[in-house]
Parts: sequence; structure tokens; C-alpha cells
Amino acid sequence: MNPMQSVSMKHIELLTNGSVTTPRGFSAGGLHCGIKKRKLDLGWIYSEVPATAAAVYTVNQFQAPPLLVTKESLAHENTIQALLVNSGIANACTGKQGLQDAYEMRQLFSKELGLAEHHVAVASTGLIGTHLPMDRIQQGISQAHAPENQTAERFEKAILTTDTCEKKLAVQCEIDGKLITIGGAAKGSGMIHPNMATMLAFVTTDADVAAESLSVALKQVTNQTFNMITVDGDSSTNDMVLVMANGKAENDTLTEAHPDWETFTGALETVCQSLAKQIAKDGEGATKLVEVLVEGAETVAAARQISKAIISSNLVKTAIYGADPNWGRIVCAIGYSGQPVIPEKVNVSIGPIAVVENGLPLVFDEDEAKEYMMQETVHISVDLQEGSGAATAWGCDLTYDYVKINASYRT
Amino acid sequence: MNPMQSVSMKHIELLTNGSVTTPRGFSAGGLHCGIKKRKLDLGWIYSEVPATAAAVYTVNQFQAPPLLVTKESLAHENTIQALLVNSGIANACTGKQGLQDAYEMRQLFSKELGLAEHHVAVASTGLIGTHLPMDRIQQGISQAHAPENQTAERFEKAILTTDTCEKKLAVQCEIDGKLITIGGAAKGSGMIHPNMATMLAFVTTDADVAAESLSVALKQVTNQTFNMITVDGDSSTNDMVLVMANGKAENDTLTEAHPDWETFTGALETVCQSLAKQIAKDGEGATKLVEVLVEGAETVAAARQISKAIISSNLVKTAIYGADPNWGRIVCAIGYSGQPVIPEKVNVSIGPIAVVENGLPLVFDEDEAKEYMMQETVHISVDLQEGSGAATAWGCDLTYDYVKINASYRT
Repeated sequence: MNPMQSVSMKHIELLTNGSVTTPRGFSAGGLHCGIKKRKLDLGWIYSEVPATAAAVYTVNQFQAPPLLVTKESLAHENTIQALLVNSGIANACTGKQGLQDAYEMRQLFSKELGLAEHHVAVASTGLIGTHLPMDRIQQGISQAHAPENQTAERFEKAILTTDTCEKKLAVQCEIDGKLITIGGAAKGSGMIHPNMATMLAFVTTDADVAAESLSVALKQVTNQTFNMITVDGDSSTNDMVLVMANGKAENDTLTEAHPDWETFTGALETVCQSLAKQIAKDGEGATKLVEVLVEGAETVAAARQISKAIISSNLVKTAIYGADPNWGRIVCAIGYSGQPVIPEKVNVSIGPIAVVENGLPLVFDEDEAKEYMMQETVHISVDLQEGSGAATAWGCDLTYDYVKINASYRT
Repeated sequence: MNPMQSVSMKHIELLTNGSVTTPRGFSAGGLHCGIKKRKLDLGWIYSEVPATAAAVYTVNQFQAPPLLVTKESLAHENTIQALLVNSGIANACTGKQGLQDAYEMRQLFSKELGLAEHHVAVASTGLIGTHLPMDRIQQGISQAHAPENQTAERFEKAILTTDTCEKKLAVQCEIDGKLITIGGAAKGSGMIHPNMATMLAFVTTDADVAAESLSVALKQVTNQTFNMITVDGDSSTNDMVLVMANGKAENDTLTEAHPDWETFTGALETVCQSLAKQIAKDGEGATKLVEVLVEGAETVAAARQISKAIISSNLVKTAIYGADPNWGRIVCAIGYSGQPVIPEKVNVSIGPIAVVENGLPLVFDEDEAKEYMMQETVHISVDLQEGSGAATAWGCDLTYDYVKINASYRT
């Protein structure tokens, strides 16, 4: 599925200023409770009515307690009405106490809102191995109703760690003649790598969607978006993508059988792809967004693996930082990706400039290539000339600032 | 096999000033032929008599032409008498012309030495996608006999690229009451990653070893040494480990059935492990050697995979650069390694300081840990408490200089 096609064919409208509260019936907010020194560190999303929910979680075996608690909430009846997120401390590797704290977060927030506990999801992001200051979180929750705390922007800020900007948008499309909206917010920055999770993303929609179908759509879309980004190759303990669908648009319940199902999944993909790209672009220390398209592979899986190998290569990432059209490193990454290719068939382009044809270097204007690579977004495309499998991966360059940020994250 | 035990049990003596010419019957040299601006760029090893040879090659699918030519030489009768290496240009992704050039390198050198072509191996390292300046190489080969060019040190220098120092040593042990010597030289620096190759290493010995047994020993030892190091996760197109055994020690031909076989493979492992560690320590921009020991795994394969995940993590590598005892990143890497572990059983130590026990953080003296991490070698040990599988991996920290070197390698 090509989301750009979806946009033109199915009238999916992008609202770059949209947010998780653009869909009807959702509110959101954030405040500073004292986990971080000054910045907002506690955020929430609330739906006026119970919303159908689906989520995907990190594959890291050290899954943090908040993920376990959220899984339990969703397992109940795939319905939640609110979400509470803290940043600053991940509540990971915290043992029984950590699990107890995650349950307590859920319990305190559900009580504050007058909801059943299983109607609340929780998430945490930040430092591993430290216990949450539950007194501050409790104090924060008691302030959550204050009118000055109620904006989507405060939510977007409250979930950030080393991110330098908020990640958000909304899209709209028509289903059953009803306008439906999907909004999203995310945080990323470090520990970002293909294989899900590796960041937090929250999606809201006023569409009415059947629970199982929503779960299927989220998994499919996550594979093509969040699972195709990398910042540093590290999959975190805490990450999840959560979608809430509250039905306020009053469309006929969406399932795979609905004639507009593709429109809905296309819109969902547009939101997730944009959030994924926003995360990649704001990777720790990054100065550039890198987009790697691999076409002509035998299978989609092969194209995915090769595009991820390229986007994950430290040597490719540093060359992009240095605006160096060092195609040898791209070819090298293709060669060790683990997917068989026919070297003599490989074509590589950097932006509009063809640099390798049939496995051999082309003569090209180095200055032109260098100039192209100084742009904010660098496209690399590979054609394996073997089949019709294609995939796109997103990442960022590797810079001095990445080292700076991560050599002293805790101090 | 624990090489430290081997040293004490089997009387393997380390000669840190030894080289590829310490074993009897080998000479070596190097010169500047003009591939690089000033530094030595053409090196060779010569054995007085034909030597049994074995090699392992990169798994990268874009194998460079010199590897194909060397494979062909070895395939002939597993015997070579000389090796020619150039640095500066890798002769990779150079198509038919590149293959022709590699054959010509072999042909020119064999003619100069009066050897059969299949008694010569060739290797190249450096920039990908550029053709070798064959006129300069030819000119260089014609100077190879000059007495002032004949030292092992010149060979060690001639094979380097962005390395900051030569990598070399020799060891001695007794077999059949005969003193046998094994010497080695290597280059590394960038594009270093587990899965063989990823660097050049050349080993000489005056032991008499059966061809097939030599090949078995090299593969086994490479798996435990060169395949356990990483600098940046990129496996190169050009790398190989080549061993030559010329029999000058006049021992009974070594095979797996020889009573001293273990002594020989222990000595070979000592050489390869030392070269591998020298490569890791001199990784591009590195300030520290990192050694990761994983014990208590269900299998050796699991221990290998987990130790490699830790040593390859950019977040762990930057933390080590910053002397930050950020054990959360170590635990995180264990969790996404792809090998199942029981989180509640995982113990982690940084040097002598236990930081995680049974999956939970311990209280430890941060200043003491920081001070420990400022040493030249940082040991990380993990005990999974599940079985008896153990493995060690080596790497280096990720620094500003890594980014600096690689953002502008070609310019």
C-alpha cells in the first residue's frame, strides 16, 4: 500500500496542526509533577466515552511493568477510556515494586476520573532501573483536572525525554459519508530501532472500529511505519503504540469487510508514517532525516531487511552527516544484510543522482551529490532488479551530538 | 577452551615483539608505491618454501576480486609461498576490470619472485569502487626485492588504513620436542563486525600442519576471536584471515589426531585473540577496549549472540566513552539480543562492581564505577544463571572521533 497514493485517491486530508484531541470526544493534558527538574512529566488522554483500543508492545524481553499493566487493561474487553503517561523514569527493571507502582498509577488515575481500573492504560519512559516517586505522581494526578493543564500540546510535551520537539498531526477522511479524524502524538529520540516499540506513540480516532479489526490494522501499519525506523539500533524496554477509537463519528462499525476499510487503514498509516518520520528526524543528535527505499527485491521481507541494514549502518549514517556520497558503504550494507542479492544487478541512487548501476560505480558530479546531501532529508534508493518487493525505512545521521547526548545521559 | 589456561598449562610463550617473520623461513616487507599519498601501501610475506595455507573470507556478498583470486590460489593445492597486500584502495565493486587487476597483481608478483601464480595470494583494503593504479603497483613490485624494504614492521605498516598503530605478536610452544612459532599481523579500524572477515589478518607458522586440519583449526579459532569483535557493525567486502604453515620446525605433521593438537590450536587462538583485541582496541576513534563476558547461558551460541548484542550497542558504547555505569543499557541489549533469557535471573557486573542481581539494580558506588570505567580496558560480565554456555566478545567505545573520521573518510 502506497500512502501517497492513498492520499490522492481516497481524499485523506493532512492536518499538520492536528493532534490527539482533533478527533471528537478526546481531551488531553499534561503537567509537571516533579519526576524531571522543570519540564512537564505527566500527561494523559481522556475519551468522553469508552473507546475500543489496540496496542503493540516492545519485543525486548525486559518489558517494563507499565506495559504489563496496560496489556491487562486491554485484555479485559479491549476498551479503555483514559491513558496516563509519565516521562523521566521508565519504571523498567524495577521488580515487584515497579509492578506495584504501575498498578498504583492506574488505580490513582482511574479513581481521579471515576473510571474502572481496566479502563485506564499507563506508560512510562525515561531512565531504566529507578523507582517512580509515587508521592509526586499522586500529587500530580490530583492536579490533572485543573483547566490550565488541559491542552494536547501539554500532553505532547509531557511524554518527551531527550526529544527536541513534539511529534503530532491529524488526518481526516470520509467514511459512510461521515467525516472521521485520526490524531496522533509520539516521542522517540534514543533507543529507536526496527522491531516495534522503541518509542511511545498514541493514536486517537472518532471512528467506530471493531476491536479485532483495529488490532489487525495497527499491527499491519506498525510493521510498515514504526518498525521501519531506526535511530541507534537499540530496542527499548518500554515502548508501545496504542490506538483508541471512540466511535463518535457514528460511522458503521469498521471491519475488514467494510467498503471503506482501505481508506481507514490508509489514513491510519498516514498518521503512523508521519509520526515515525518525525521520530526518526528528531533522533538523538540528528541533523537529517534519511529515507531508504529498496525496490526490485524478491520479496517485501527481503526489501525490508536490506533497507533496515542500510539505515542502521553507522558508516552510512556518518557519511550522511558529512554529506559524503560514499556509495561504497551503502553497497557494503546491502552485501551483509543477510538477504541474498545479485551484486551485478544492484542499482543505487542518492537523491536524483545515480551512483551505482549493475553493481558498478557511475561517474557522477561529487559536488552536486554533496550539495544534495546537505538538505534536511536525504533519499537513498536501491533497485535490486530481481522482483517486485519494495520497502521504505527511515532513520537519521550519526553525529557528534549523538555521542555527546549519550555519553552523559544520566549526569 | 580458555586461552589463559592454555598459556599456563601448555607453556605457550607470548612474544609481544614477535611478528610474522619470527617463525623460521618467513620474510616480509613493505614500501610506498603511490596508492596513498605518503604512507606505505604495498606489503608482502614470503616463505622460503611452499607453505600449507588456509583462509576464511568475509560473508559480505560483494566479495572483492582479490578474495576470489586468493580463493583460486588456495583451491589449487592449499599451498602458497607468498602474499601481496595493498592498502588505500579495496578493489571492491570494480567489476571485470577489478578482477583483471587482482589477477595482474598476482601475476606480477609471482613473476618477480619466480613462483607459480597459484603460489601467490593477494589482498586489498581501502576505499570501495575505485580501480587500482596498476602502473604504480607494477612499479612497486619491481622494488620489492630492495634490502631496505625487508622488515616485518614495514609489512605491518603497509597493510594499515585508518589504523593508528600496527597489530602484531608471536607465540611459541613445544610440539614433538620441537620449538614451533606462530606469528601474526593484522589491520582493522573501521567496518569491523562479528561474522568474520571485517579486517585483514595474516598468520605465519613454522609448524608442519596438514592442510585440512589447518583449515579446521582456523575456522574454529576465527569463530572465537575475529568473529567476536565489533567496531561499528559493518562487515566489509574485503576481509580475510590467512594462515601459512611452512613446516620449517620439522615436527610430525599436525592433525587432530596429534597428541599436541590442542597445544597448537591453543597457540593459534592466542595469536588470533591478541590480534582481534588489538583491532578492537584500535577501532576508529576508540579510547577503550571493551570486553564482554557472558556466562551461564543455555548454549555457547546464546552466549555469543548476547555478548555481541551488548558490544554492538551504540548506547552501551557511548556510555563507556562517557565512563557512565549505565547498566540499564546493558540489560536492554540483553533483552533485545534475540536469545531468550529469564530477566529475573540476570546478573551484571562492570569490572569488579556488581550492578544488577537477579534482574534488579544493586546499590553501588557510582564514583567507584566511574573511576573503573576510565581505565583503558573495561570488562562487563553477565551471568544468566541458566546453563554453562559462555562466550567473550570484544569491542570499543563510540566517540566523537569515530564520527569525525567517518564523516569525512574520503575527503
